[in-house]
Amino acid sequence: MNKKIKVSIVGGSGYTGIELLRLLALHPHVEILYITSRNDAGKFVCDIYSSLRGVLSHKFVDPDKVELGNSDLVFFATPSGIAMNYAKKLLEKGIKIIDLAADFRIKDVKKWEKWYEMTHKCPDIVEKAIYGLPEVNRNLIKDAQIVANPGCYPTAIQLALNPLLKEGLIDPISIIADAKSGISGAGKKNHNDLLLSEASENFKAYSITGHRHLPEIEENLTKNSTIGEVKVLFTPHLLPISRGIHASIYVNCIKDFDPSGIFKKYYANEPFIDVLEKNSCPETKSVRGSNICRISYFKVPDTNQLLVLVVIDNLVKGAAGQAIQNMNIMMKFEETLGLQSIPLVP
Amino acid sequence: MNKKIKVSIVGGSGYTGIELLRLLALHPHVEILYITSRNDAGKFVCDIYSSLRGVLSHKFVDPDKVELGNSDLVFFATPSGIAMNYAKKLLEKGIKIIDLAADFRIKDVKKWEKWYEMTHKCPDIVEKAIYGLPEVNRNLIKDAQIVANPGCYPTAIQLALNPLLKEGLIDPISIIADAKSGISGAGKKNHNDLLLSEASENFKAYSITGHRHLPEIEENLTKNSTIGEVKVLFTPHLLPISRGIHASIYVNCIKDFDPSGIFKKYYANEPFIDVLEKNSCPETKSVRGSNICRISYFKVPDTNQLLVLVVIDNLVKGAAGQAIQNMNIMMKFEETLGLQSIPLVP
Amino acid sequence: MNKKIKVSIVGGSGYTGIELLRLLALHPHVEILYITSRNDAGKFVCDIYSSLRGVLSHKFVDPDKVELGNSDLVFFATPSGIAMNYAKKLLEKGIKIIDLAADFRIKDVKKWEKWYEMTHKCPDIVEKAIYGLPEVNRNLIKDAQIVANPGCYPTAIQLALNPLLKEGLIDPISIIADAKSGISGAGKKNHNDLLLSEASENFKAYSITGHRHLPEIEENLTKNSTIGEVKVLFTPHLLPISRGIHASIYVNCIKDFDPSGIFKKYYANEPFIDVLEKNSCPETKSVRGSNICRISYFKVPDTNQLLVLVVIDNLVKGAAGQAIQNMNIMMKFEETLGLQSIPLVP
Amino acid sequence: MNKKIKVSIVGGSGYTGIELLRLLALHPHVEILYITSRNDAGKFVCDIYSSLRGVLSHKFVDPDKVELGNSDLVFFATPSGIAMNYAKKLLEKGIKIIDLAADFRIKDVKKWEKWYEMTHKCPDIVEKAIYGLPEVNRNLIKDAQIVANPGCYPTAIQLALNPLLKEGLIDPISIIADAKSGISGAGKKNHNDLLLSEASENFKAYSITGHRHLPEIEENLTKNSTIGEVKVLFTPHLLPISRGIHASIYVNCIKDFDPSGIFKKYYANEPFIDVLEKNSCPETKSVRGSNICRISYFKVPDTNQLLVLVVIDNLVKGAAGQAIQNMNIMMKFEETLGLQSIPLVP
Repeated sequence: MNKKIKVSIVGGSGYTGIELLRLLALHPHVEILYITSRNDAGKFVCDIYSSLRGVLSHKFVDPDKVELGNSDLVFFATPSGIAMNYAKKLLEKGIKIIDLAADFRIKDVKKWEKWYEMTHKCPDIVEKAIYGLPEVNRNLIKDAQIVANPGCYPTAIQLALNPLLKEGLIDPISIIADAKSGISGAGKKNHNDLLLSEASENFKAYSITGHRHLPEIEENLTKNSTIGEVKVLFTPHLLPISRGIHASIYVNCIKDFDPSGIFKKYYANEPFIDVLEKNSCPETKSVRGSNICRISYFKVPDTNQLLVLVVIDNLVKGAAGQAIQNMNIMMKFEETLGLQSIPLVP
Repeated sequence: MNKKIKVSIVGGSGYTGIELLRLLALHPHVEILYITSRNDAGKFVCDIYSSLRGVLSHKFVDPDKVELGNSDLVFFATPSGIAMNYAKKLLEKGIKIIDLAADFRIKDVKKWEKWYEMTHKCPDIVEKAIYGLPEVNRNLIKDAQIVANPGCYPTAIQLALNPLLKEGLIDPISIIADAKSGISGAGKKNHNDLLLSEASENFKAYSITGHRHLPEIEENLTKNSTIGEVKVLFTPHLLPISRGIHASIYVNCIKDFDPSGIFKKYYANEPFIDVLEKNSCPETKSVRGSNICRISYFKVPDTNQLLVLVVIDNLVKGAAGQAIQNMNIMMKFEETLGLQSIPLVP
Repeated sequence: MNKKIKVSIVGGSGYTGIELLRLLALHPHVEILYITSRNDAGKFVCDIYSSLRGVLSHKFVDPDKVELGNSDLVFFATPSGIAMNYAKKLLEKGIKIIDLAADFRIKDVKKWEKWYEMTHKCPDIVEKAIYGLPEVNRNLIKDAQIVANPGCYPTAIQLALNPLLKEGLIDPISIIADAKSGISGAGKKNHNDLLLSEASENFKAYSITGHRHLPEIEENLTKNSTIGEVKVLFTPHLLPISRGIHASIYVNCIKDFDPSGIFKKYYANEPFIDVLEKNSCPETKSVRGSNICRISYFKVPDTNQLLVLVVIDNLVKGAAGQAIQNMNIMMKFEETLGLQSIPLVP
Repeated sequence: MNKKIKVSIVGGSGYTGIELLRLLALHPHVEILYITSRNDAGKFVCDIYSSLRGVLSHKFVDPDKVELGNSDLVFFATPSGIAMNYAKKLLEKGIKIIDLAADFRIKDVKKWEKWYEMTHKCPDIVEKAIYGLPEVNRNLIKDAQIVANPGCYPTAIQLALNPLLKEGLIDPISIIADAKSGISGAGKKNHNDLLLSEASENFKAYSITGHRHLPEIEENLTKNSTIGEVKVLFTPHLLPISRGIHASIYVNCIKDFDPSGIFKKYYANEPFIDVLEKNSCPETKSVRGSNICRISYFKVPDTNQLLVLVVIDNLVKGAAGQAIQNMNIMMKFEETLGLQSIPLVP
């Protein structure tokens, strides 16, 4: 008998919300209960996203007018600062939570409050939330009641660097992450920079004086480092594409080692990590629509420099796909369920 | 017991070939036997298409160095003029064939030879080949040994017009099909027009004096018409996108009727046809990566004009997806198997 | 001595405003006096549009805090419904006006009010405003005090059809204009449909039940028709490009004639109209950034159908460029001044 | 009296050739004599590039069938390895040469031969060729008979780094240049990677094990360095846009200094260099179609790291525009002639 869990999505009308729906709609063990949106409450989901016609018959509901507590698990695909208002009550009812925003990603609440410019409503829950990077925390996620789903840039950068830092192979304070994201990473927001007339045929860096993903990156890399605190010079750039993150990461090696051996050892059994041949160049389109992360590297001759290249789809492994991977782990489902689709090329 | 059929793909390195692989790789009843490519023989498929890494371990093989006869079914994802050289031998061995090119699409062999500028090698097989538009020929496809998979433009245009012509509702000789296709419709060819530097930020009509899909469109529409021979003024245009066909079709009604009723009646049980509300505008992205065709229409007030709008993904419903739909029908599989993926938005 | 006229731009922060600035900045006989923007008042123009750094040192000003009356000519690059509030006062001072919005485009004020959903403030001025299509009204523009700059779609469609209607060669009531516009045609507005994540890799029709440019098209085509009132079935579509309009126009000929002769005769001395060889296909990129309109045509064999293809850059010949062309005519400057730049390809 | 010089373009059918034509066509002191192309000889230039219709009436000619020696100056917009076959003869006749390819860019001929995999035909001419970066070599260019026009990446990277190296402010051997180029940088070549279906919605690094521009970058930076040999870790990436180069350059400062002061001092009188405010982010579109280079920088707090950001249009300042700037200098024309056009935005 195919028993299904009941899942609700708070903030279902943004890009991570809709991506959750695209993926969950075909998940064999999931029944979607509520999809909330204050702005679109009362409208059919598929009237806003016609790609879901014939797939979902739900209407958006107001999150305050339904009993989220009827769910087994609630995804928050909201802006940061929302999930923290709902967490306590849901957890008390024994409902599992996966927050795709930043409310529970950073343990240092003071730092969180500085970067996110608000007061945290439940620092105690931050403490027990598990940072949902399965390649690092799989065992903790299994028993977690609340999971903080990592940011998109942080996912890519950590997957590229964790093995090197864990083995103590690179200088932890001279790391440079030159990262590029597709436009959907900014959400479905009405902002001039995101208009096709502005963003197409264009490329630029942004937020160079400080991007909110930086403290998340540094805190979590440091946690996995065996050689002390990690500092990253993180430069985000805006790509004229919808989906995809690419990072070119420059590190200085402090030992002589074979990157291939390291990456293959760490990721040998990982269903979603693909380590390419050295000197090859992963492309964002090769992971489009899928939960896969591809990594390669290049040792610069006659130096101690190593270039690590990594790509993910920001909406899948960088958001909704990873959230479902976390759900699968929390629910003891096969970890790849609902996530087997093959990248869309061309 | 999950019995799998053995399937081979001749011409696996082009866009329709690779799309077949993307879809077949997850089909529960298919085992891929051979993927041929003269140019890439000996190379791993996933070395050319990195999106298939971890999914397919096949190498491309030379079609003349393997026994295609070991397959249960062979797809030809080749240029036109290839399948006709293999068909006879394979059919004699009882192997089923689905040709994604044009060799068997047009019954009028003389006309075919004029448009495709070559001599047909097996006019007898043309005669018994079934035109693989399931919404029209499902029953014939069931028992077909060889199926001619329709062209991309013809699929979109026929799905939009067949119900109207079958019911004798429109003037068959004043039809205008203003159609637009994404670049992948031209195949993975090295042609200047297809370069990003040429095609991006650009739009134009092409082949206005005669496109090879025109005789296919007219012959098949005529077959479904109850009011005589059909003539179409067909204008193809090149869209600066990878995937997607959109057609705006202008017809003159000769009776008063409710288009909604007609379309809904004809497509009530069709798993891949979505009839939208009148006056709505289907968008190509809403079918991207999926086998779905969306249709809507607009009755021009105070005239007898009707505008029918239709979208498909040229590589799926317009090629590989429809081929798999045909395979499912021929093999008595569930018709939607392997084709349930939801359009990739955004 | 190079005497310069003083020009102001009301609504300078939108795309037509900024395009006026790009072009006027190099015009030898123009000095830019005021550039207004309520939202951006006080900011340097080049802080919003960095492409103008080093070119313009102006700040945006509030239109109500400067004396527009100090200008020789005022361009309104505002939304429709603004210029009509300023026109009377400026005209009384003898200042010339070119309105790039719709306030003075339609002589039938009742119809205008219905389509634009507001009450017109100065129907008397509508009456004396000249419709600024130089290829039709050059002589009237010369002496005009106020010019209504045509819409982008109307410009393309009229340039394609006027010669045929003037000569009475086509049926005036069965015209179909399948038109496609780049995103910038919608202005610099924060609307979901215009986001790169929505609009890229996408194509759709829109406003099929009635686009505001339709009454402008029909009224002006009718004015130029020698065979009665003109009706157009006008279908606008959204192209995933920044700039460019393409229209495929289908007409039924009522006489036998040589389109080449007609077009070449009408446009022989036009500096911005390029009549291509028959059967060729103009592309939007071939006019990008320039004031040129390219036209070609295809006579459908064995029918009376004629396909006319036309391209312009919606921001240049469809807006700012045509406005400057009008200014040159009004000011008795060389008509092509400031408009000689060559299309940007690739 | 406006005396014009006679200019020929060898290799006129590629993107740098056509960009030369776009710019030269409006240059007041230039008459275009020959435009050569072996493949397209006999065809009208404007039949290949319709954007030049009405602008140029030239036909492509075979370079071996015309007397290039009738020119005052010859541009080579050919692949590398062509100009070196013509240089001697032309120079002997007193004709000036600007080579847009790499034949004369690298003084170390051995190194050149290794990277370009051919034997140099005239090492003696390499010696006297002037490297055409006006911001560095203006005085030498004035009297040059042959100028090696810099590569696109090298132009951007040198303009960003020269002031810092000249002043001895940064560590010359730990420089990282993370650079991204639009597709047109690869030329009008039929290569799969350049197809819209492959390149759009995609991003990747390439040639990470060694790009031909690296020796040019290092040799010329070293020449301008006051603190020894320069080493660069140069990572090129492919952007899904037609035009534009962006480089994010990471350097380690060895002195405390104000970058603003340095950049402004060096570029105070440069007509094509725009130094932005610190912490701002130049965008490629802000220089599209123009000869401008925009530079900004960010001092990383609590470190000695400096991020320098730079953008150019690869076909203008990175190729044809810079070549014309060099021509202007060689011919004692106003340096900005023909190069005043304003970037095309949006």
